Amino acid sequence: MRRKSFEGDICAVARSLDVIGDWWSLLIIRDAFGGHRRFGEFQRNLGTAKNILTTRLKALVENGILEMAPASDGSAFYEYVLTAKGEALLPALIALAQWGKDYLFDEHESCNVPVDSVHGEPLKKLALVAQDGRELEAADVSMIPPD
Amino acid sequence: MRRKSFEGDICAVARSLDVIGDWWSLLIIRDAFGGHRRFGEFQRNLGTAKNILTTRLKALVENGILEMAPASDGSAFYEYVLTAKGEALLPALIALAQWGKDYLFDEHESCNVPVDSVHGEPLKKLALVAQDGRELEAADVSMIPPD
Repeated sequence: MRRKSFEGDICAVARSLDVIGDWWSLLIIRDAFGGHRRFGEFQRNLGTAKNILTTRLKALVENGILEMAPASDGSAFYEYVLTAKGEALLPALIALAQWGKDYLFDEHESCNVPVDSVHGEPLKKLALVAQDGRELEAADVSMIPPD
Repeated sequence: MRRKSFEGDICAVARSLDVIGDWWSLLIIRDAFGGHRRFGEFQRNLGTAKNILTTRLKALVENGILEMAPASDGSAFYEYVLTAKGEALLPALIALAQWGKDYLFDEHESCNVPVDSVHGEPLKKLALVAQDGRELEAADVSMIPPD
């Protein structure tokens, strides 16, 4: 089934999902944040088929989330590096990681979440904050702007 | 193709994507935040096929993200309501919305993003904050905890 495209959708969530709403793509982006740069590294870490990985990497480059760069060691390999647009996805990854840790893991189960590089501690829970500084609950947020 | 399951994965991002890493599911959750509660409302708003919507709603209920409740107007309909686990996904939706607004819309293009219900203004950009209060950039966050 060809999935519906939300490319022209007025909703920013829908349009984002059109670009990165594919679980392989988000895991590739996660691994790029984790320092992976080469096709073989992504493949080993994700355990994905070559053709799937090739398609997803190509789409991420076309969408400006990754860019290809010559290998940092001077070899003939290409590397995939996050662009600024790609790096800006970190809050979305953190949000998913924090939610997963809270709701999908048992208390004593090992759980990898992104950490502060300096102290190795998980980040604070992402807070929803209004322009005037009020911290918001779900009930204080409206998905549709008032007319 | 049957997709790989990350149900037992140690990474919280992977495990989250196993549950909600399906763009229909996240759009259903978005619409539930937007106040939609009935099958027909989700169907009209998403323009999705009945069988797809049925499967996704069932999975969201099974995963404890939505729960079924008697209709609020006393009619024979069932309604789908976000659980606490479902409401806790709001930061992930906000993160996607903010990223989409920044990178996928032209400056003068209409763009719906979640807003503060009181003032109707978009929320502040989600900030990555360490336990000691430092605001972090992407380079300060490590996806893999130090050994």
